[in-house]
Amino acid sequence: MQEFIYDSTSADEHELPQDELDSLLAHWRAANYLAAGQIYLMDNPLLREELVPEHIKPRLLGHWGTVPGLNLVYTHLSRVARIRGQNALCVWGPGHGGPSVLANSWLEGSYADIHPDVSRDGAGMARLFRQFSFPGGVPSHVAPDVPGSIHEGGELGYSLAHAYGAAFDHPELLVACVIGDGEAETGPLATSWHSNKFLDPVHDGAVLPILHLNGYKIANPTVLARLPQTELYDLLRGYGYRPIEVAGDDPALVHRAMAGAMARAMGRIDEIQARARAGSSTERAHWPVIVLRTPKGWTGPVEVDGVPVEGTWRAHQVPLSEVRTNPDHLRMLRDWMLSYEPEKLFDEDGRPREHVLRCLPEGALRLGSNPHANGGLLLRTLPKPPLEDHAVEVKRRGGSVRSATAVLGHYLAEIMRLTADRRDFRLVGPDETASNRLDGVYAETSKTWQEEILPVDEHLSRDGRVMEVLSEHLCQGWLEGYLLTGRHGVFSTYEAFAHIIDSMANQHIKWLRTARELPWRAPVASLNYLLTSHVWRQDHNGFSHQDPGFIDHVLNKSPEVVRVYLPPDANTTLVVAENVLAGRDNVNVVVAGKQPRFDWLSLEEARAHCARGAGIWEWAGTESAAEPDVVLACAGDVPTLEVLAAAQLLRLHLPELAVRVVNVLDLTRLMPEKEHPHGYSDFDFDALFTRDRPVIFAYHGYPWLIHRLAYRRTVHPHMHVRGYREFGTTTTPFDMVVLNDLDRYRLVMDVIDRVPGLARRAAALRQEMSDVRTRHHAWIRVHGDDLPEVTEWTWEG
Amino acid sequence: MQEFIYDSTSADEHELPQDELDSLLAHWRAANYLAAGQIYLMDNPLLREELVPEHIKPRLLGHWGTVPGLNLVYTHLSRVARIRGQNALCVWGPGHGGPSVLANSWLEGSYADIHPDVSRDGAGMARLFRQFSFPGGVPSHVAPDVPGSIHEGGELGYSLAHAYGAAFDHPELLVACVIGDGEAETGPLATSWHSNKFLDPVHDGAVLPILHLNGYKIANPTVLARLPQTELYDLLRGYGYRPIEVAGDDPALVHRAMAGAMARAMGRIDEIQARARAGSSTERAHWPVIVLRTPKGWTGPVEVDGVPVEGTWRAHQVPLSEVRTNPDHLRMLRDWMLSYEPEKLFDEDGRPREHVLRCLPEGALRLGSNPHANGGLLLRTLPKPPLEDHAVEVKRRGGSVRSATAVLGHYLAEIMRLTADRRDFRLVGPDETASNRLDGVYAETSKTWQEEILPVDEHLSRDGRVMEVLSEHLCQGWLEGYLLTGRHGVFSTYEAFAHIIDSMANQHIKWLRTARELPWRAPVASLNYLLTSHVWRQDHNGFSHQDPGFIDHVLNKSPEVVRVYLPPDANTTLVVAENVLAGRDNVNVVVAGKQPRFDWLSLEEARAHCARGAGIWEWAGTESAAEPDVVLACAGDVPTLEVLAAAQLLRLHLPELAVRVVNVLDLTRLMPEKEHPHGYSDFDFDALFTRDRPVIFAYHGYPWLIHRLAYRRTVHPHMHVRGYREFGTTTTPFDMVVLNDLDRYRLVMDVIDRVPGLARRAAALRQEMSDVRTRHHAWIRVHGDDLPEVTEWTWEG
Repeated sequence: MQEFIYDSTSADEHELPQDELDSLLAHWRAANYLAAGQIYLMDNPLLREELVPEHIKPRLLGHWGTVPGLNLVYTHLSRVARIRGQNALCVWGPGHGGPSVLANSWLEGSYADIHPDVSRDGAGMARLFRQFSFPGGVPSHVAPDVPGSIHEGGELGYSLAHAYGAAFDHPELLVACVIGDGEAETGPLATSWHSNKFLDPVHDGAVLPILHLNGYKIANPTVLARLPQTELYDLLRGYGYRPIEVAGDDPALVHRAMAGAMARAMGRIDEIQARARAGSSTERAHWPVIVLRTPKGWTGPVEVDGVPVEGTWRAHQVPLSEVRTNPDHLRMLRDWMLSYEPEKLFDEDGRPREHVLRCLPEGALRLGSNPHANGGLLLRTLPKPPLEDHAVEVKRRGGSVRSATAVLGHYLAEIMRLTADRRDFRLVGPDETASNRLDGVYAETSKTWQEEILPVDEHLSRDGRVMEVLSEHLCQGWLEGYLLTGRHGVFSTYEAFAHIIDSMANQHIKWLRTARELPWRAPVASLNYLLTSHVWRQDHNGFSHQDPGFIDHVLNKSPEVVRVYLPPDANTTLVVAENVLAGRDNVNVVVAGKQPRFDWLSLEEARAHCARGAGIWEWAGTESAAEPDVVLACAGDVPTLEVLAAAQLLRLHLPELAVRVVNVLDLTRLMPEKEHPHGYSDFDFDALFTRDRPVIFAYHGYPWLIHRLAYRRTVHPHMHVRGYREFGTTTTPFDMVVLNDLDRYRLVMDVIDRVPGLARRAAALRQEMSDVRTRHHAWIRVHGDDLPEVTEWTWEG
Repeated sequence: MQEFIYDSTSADEHELPQDELDSLLAHWRAANYLAAGQIYLMDNPLLREELVPEHIKPRLLGHWGTVPGLNLVYTHLSRVARIRGQNALCVWGPGHGGPSVLANSWLEGSYADIHPDVSRDGAGMARLFRQFSFPGGVPSHVAPDVPGSIHEGGELGYSLAHAYGAAFDHPELLVACVIGDGEAETGPLATSWHSNKFLDPVHDGAVLPILHLNGYKIANPTVLARLPQTELYDLLRGYGYRPIEVAGDDPALVHRAMAGAMARAMGRIDEIQARARAGSSTERAHWPVIVLRTPKGWTGPVEVDGVPVEGTWRAHQVPLSEVRTNPDHLRMLRDWMLSYEPEKLFDEDGRPREHVLRCLPEGALRLGSNPHANGGLLLRTLPKPPLEDHAVEVKRRGGSVRSATAVLGHYLAEIMRLTADRRDFRLVGPDETASNRLDGVYAETSKTWQEEILPVDEHLSRDGRVMEVLSEHLCQGWLEGYLLTGRHGVFSTYEAFAHIIDSMANQHIKWLRTARELPWRAPVASLNYLLTSHVWRQDHNGFSHQDPGFIDHVLNKSPEVVRVYLPPDANTTLVVAENVLAGRDNVNVVVAGKQPRFDWLSLEEARAHCARGAGIWEWAGTESAAEPDVVLACAGDVPTLEVLAAAQLLRLHLPELAVRVVNVLDLTRLMPEKEHPHGYSDFDFDALFTRDRPVIFAYHGYPWLIHRLAYRRTVHPHMHVRGYREFGTTTTPFDMVVLNDLDRYRLVMDVIDRVPGLARRAAALRQEMSDVRTRHHAWIRVHGDDLPEVTEWTWEG
């Protein structure tokens, strides 16, 4: 087990020529200088004038602690890219790493490529400094604004999952990933280490985690930094890695060790890839990890106001906090920045001197210019298999039942087949692909699995492009990394448990919202959620599995980015899938149940319905030329079924009532056109829902969401919404809708209650509807199943 | 490092007397029989009649795979409780473990104690079987309905965090925790192992993790089960544990090994606790972990329809799925159940025979009767220090500024002091207690930390009751476990990152909603969130840190449980804190900024305002006896400031305008009284907001939430809500409100636009307001800070 423990203090790779070491040190010092300058200075960038309080920003909003370590990694990863011509990108995990990565991209020139005004000279340096964490400038994270970044690091926990996502299906790529020891305490990061069980050394690139133990978070030591070394190594070996340690605080020694560690790591990666690609090993690889121990705030102020700062949590943010008002602090800042000897790093015009840049690669090999970090540049259009080959035939509405996700599974299989060589499409999910009836996809690919495969196993292979792991965090993180580096994918999951990645979805939506505004960022493929096993069919799993609120969650976010679709049957599900898979820079939520359900629309009708997003289903209603007496609206597969059943009951019992049936497939159609690009104008909305007729709306999720979307519409005071109201348990499917008053009988009662004049005329029908609900209740408690009149119901169109 | 690796195949503790082994086996077989019966049978529980399809439930909704392993643990943990008189509870991690734990609680009699009709005889057994996963019955998880449970296991990932939470401050308690190898893949579980760095062997109890590797999830092998043994042991040792393995499929051998493993584990725990409590060791303890390898669906059908089932993922749910229609399946079910020899386990009346029960403890030592698993039984009222000692003096409204959380920190310190001996109050947070200005609490306690403590560290100690770890999942999981076992606590966190535990909050709220309906479950202390570093003051951290949507998230859940408070100043924050800390069975969300802000209300006024939940601030408005011309409403500290500043501008510039200022502190007051217990009647609502005057509402979060809460109110068409609309970046505090149109100048413009007749009269003022916003924009881009007229604004009351 211990064959590959490296020790950074002994190996000969450390024997760097002195001039190369000098240039690495110079580059690192320059980056440190530029990072400190961004945090503090709004003028006098080269300190050629006496430093005065007016040069200092009024609000000091930056984080120094992590910077020197990130600069060390940037320097040495750049060197590897240069020496080896290595295609490399880095995921910068630590929060607020912006000053470091911005400094480095300025040094290598990738920043000026996209922002010519922030040029590689004194004037550009002044702009670089001033804009940082300044109104109208750039934020302090490694946000979309930062070239070379695919990971903001604002919310911690996802760096390593993103790195793996970037490496999948990029066999020539090296993805380094700096993991802060704070981030390492999060759950998502703790399980991300296991991603190595899903990375195929033949078809995927390499991930090189660099665990940066600078010892402290905001106010505390970190769990991993305080472990005895043997225990930490046990942990990393247990995760399947082979640690290489670099530790120290003497810059020259650490740079030597880091160069050696990178060389050893790359050697190990070469060996793993060569053996796997030659077919001489199918054993799971044990990849290297670099453990980097350097002081927090290294090379910054050692002690401030009598307390230690460098190497403690006090260096986390700004080590000197009173620079504008305390002359001692101002002097310490000057001394600190001058300690990097800027005059040796930058020429008279503020340009980096030649030896500072000697370790850097050119062109697209620069970390800030690698197209993988601007994945839209690499994105290829996904094949669009003809839907005709997968659509279901609808001879008679409601005449057949199909699982929409099963139909979709075969369509996804076809996309898998068409991308078998390109390998730019993946399906991720937490152990639920088969449970969600998408297993048709296994006809064309398998689940990726690098551990032992036993004869009893099914659909496992080293190179599969379905990814299953019981961690929604990993699924989401992998897919984000995959999409942001220019590929396509779908995340299928139980509806309720999408909330596990609420916060990750937030961050991805925020990323896309910001990236959309940056002309140099090419659009990437949309992130597509397929929420199945939804609230209404969690009768068997019970209350804990019932939650339709992910829709509410995403609809709070930027409307440019978010879309929500509720296809009511198999063909609409296919059309929606085709649409969202072709999308760019969106987050699409598609809710489609996995249980067999009626087919309503032919492919042609489905296309027309999806294009409209919402529409009148004339064939289901009874209205004639005039305005209807009532509108029965529905969104979602189960509500659609209940509305159609209610419409049928009304047609049978109250044939004179003019009923309009409206199906809403694109939920954002309900929003005002000023608030969402898909929003209907009032004119179009009124044309569907009328201005003053009672609207009984059966909605898939929490009913108040419909009110929040539609409260400005003229008809809103007449809208009555039924939906899930957090009433559920282990029971039957129909009991779920009864418990939440969404059932067909209740909807008929709602119509009777709300159409003027109907209450008296239809009192008997109302009583009958109420009785059948009571009968249902009694029946299921005896028989453990739904009434035959529900389970055997058919549409009579 | 390797001193405590145990091997289950060699030790002498395995030498159980044969009769004791026989009784353990009998108990286990009985539990297996009862679990299978629950999944399949609705009649003929003892199989005394010929088994026919009518005896089988129409819908088979249960999970067999995990059951035999759980039954093994239940048997042996009960034996330990009996032999040692050990106070023990168990957290049952695997999803759908219900049939096992229900079977065991029926056997030990704890189930009949709370459900006398489900008696320990044939009639009771019939009820036990029928009710399981049956409409009107009990769900298939270890839900609140299950005695002895504090953890449902419906959503996976939180078992070990719950176990640690239960063990903190319960020095005599043993908390076993079964972790499924599926669950072990989740992020939260992966980091939960590190909880051992926060458990003090002197003041806390012991946690005994039992990692149950049955090899498969729903459809896949598991990551941990397929690791080479040495790699798994490295991992567990790296997490700080000493593994003891029990593996096999021969029941007698496995039972012997399990008895030995439990004895070794308890011996190790005794030794750790004895040394720590004698003061002879302050080194971090390396606690035991049991690695249990048994086949999935062990003792169930080996092969069904020609494919292997036992020991594969196919045993996950129901191994025989067609029992009602396929005579082969029916026969196999009969053979399977009879293989346990029920006639040897149950007497003529269906009562468990004496030797079946011999291993079980009595009374409160039974796992299903331990009061720790019904924590409300142990709950003591939290001391209420007089608020007078902590309230701030308000000589003049807006005459002083204070950080509300700093004031609160001292109040929490006093509670820490008053509970120093009781040790039943904790404060948890992700490395943010000081950042959130709650560090006054360190006057009375420290942060718990079992790793090395260095001279440079501050506020760390072995026995502290502040818990900081950079994992919101751990904070939430620990606190849930702590509360459900009868204690009190607060979780303080950055507002945006509360979304990380959205799904955990869901599950806890669902637990409380269900537990409230169970008369035998005693109420537990409420879970209190303190959301600080909120959206409006994330100007420095930027867009990724801006999200007020946790409020929206919890307000989708059961209204009996959820409460949302937005105290506008220090004294209201104190009163709210006192209130929520005394609460039971609620989830309280308190949003209180950490930045210094004006004090508005005296303690007495704050008490009255909190009691009302919302109220008119007469001193801020200009209305006389008649109805006002406009209502300026606010909820949240920053919106309150902006509304008061707007009111002041209006008073100055439009003194004739009758302005009413309403502050909403309890957000659920806005809801209809039928939809939330705190909801106002229409009468009360109209009295505050009028029926027809323009209402300009400045709200802390997403503005549409107010519409969703208030859309049924008479005045709703006149309500105009300002709030966070997902516009933010790194900028100044005032720019944040300007970007989202929540600033005082915009509010004045809103008033002018919406009060009939004012537009013409106040056109100049409107232009002035618009100009100052433009001036602000230009100013901050030059100066990097807000206009002096904003930063130096004072209230002139």
